[in-house]
Amino acid sequence: MRISALAAEAGLPVATVKYYLREGLLQPGTATSATQASYDEHHLRRLRLVRALTGPVGLSVQQARSVLQLVDEPGDDLYSTLGRAVGALPPDGAEPAGADDPYPRARAALEALGQVYDPEFAAVAQLEGALAAADDAGMPITPERLARYGSAAADLAAYDLERMPPEPHAAVEYTVLGTALYEPVLLALRRLAHQDAAVRRLGREA
Amino acid sequence: MRISALAAEAGLPVATVKYYLREGLLQPGTATSATQASYDEHHLRRLRLVRALTGPVGLSVQQARSVLQLVDEPGDDLYSTLGRAVGALPPDGAEPAGADDPYPRARAALEALGQVYDPEFAAVAQLEGALAAADDAGMPITPERLARYGSAAADLAAYDLERMPPEPHAAVEYTVLGTALYEPVLLALRRLAHQDAAVRRLGREA
Repeated sequence: MRISALAAEAGLPVATVKYYLREGLLQPGTATSATQASYDEHHLRRLRLVRALTGPVGLSVQQARSVLQLVDEPGDDLYSTLGRAVGALPPDGAEPAGADDPYPRARAALEALGQVYDPEFAAVAQLEGALAAADDAGMPITPERLARYGSAAADLAAYDLERMPPEPHAAVEYTVLGTALYEPVLLALRRLAHQDAAVRRLGREA
Repeated sequence: MRISALAAEAGLPVATVKYYLREGLLQPGTATSATQASYDEHHLRRLRLVRALTGPVGLSVQQARSVLQLVDEPGDDLYSTLGRAVGALPPDGAEPAGADDPYPRARAALEALGQVYDPEFAAVAQLEGALAAADDAGMPITPERLARYGSAAADLAAYDLERMPPEPHAAVEYTVLGTALYEPVLLALRRLAHQDAAVRRLGREA
């Protein structure tokens, strides 16, 4: 298909598609003349990915390019690539507290849950910041709540990992999008489950 | 305690505490002279709440004031007050699609989960937007995944509701902070559980 049809299929202006081509987020099409190129389903799929990363996921074009490079070149160490790809997603976490024990709350929490603690992993700083904010507000996460939330997270993670495509390029794409796009779904479902539980407990005005 | 001690205890500049007093986010102290007032633990607790709402939760001073009004005057219909308080929190959801069926994806999802569907509730628009983003990216939430995520959310909500303080002012405060401050904890735990599951599945470089 021509660039105009590609843009229409993706629901994007042609100028935006051209911008993604210039920025290297979208692979060039197959040249069909000096001024025209042809695009296929592969390009459309990539455009949907770029649109998600720069839209709902909230990445800059530069950040999206970094993530796409990991999708395109996952390398031999898929575990490390997945960690870097997820680490490129918002939000940023807390600053390290010190060289010896940079994330003390997150370390203690992961030890309590019996999980891997690796301070290089971006979500550790994120957990540290989230636990510190709860402490500062006078509503610290109790060990019991940590166990409950940790267990729910582990169940969801096991489910998500079982469905990860075996092919490395697809695995990185699935992990990035599944992490970023399903987080808001989970949070909305939690708020709605609160509402559902509250209406059963408190009743509502007629 | 004097305002300087209050500010020091809360870890805030005196000028910020005075600003919150002027904006009505913090109740006035007890006047001890023409130019001085005395503050107590109640003020300190409120300052921690204001700091959380305007800091990690990300509300503007105006939005924080709206939430604090619901904390201070929860009224008789606690279910509705809780809904409005949580509705004042970010993020905003999707625009309604039409008058007859404004949030079709969210409605279908909640029906599938057997939960209350009330389009007035802010998280419904949030769920609609999150489901639409997943659709647009070519990674729709399958019915099986929805059931799994919904079940995890319901378990967490039941746990959270059981621990809600019975006193209405405290219930609103608990619900607002528990919703906003524990969401980032849950998301960080999910990412870390992914990492933990991935290292078991994929192994890691030595």
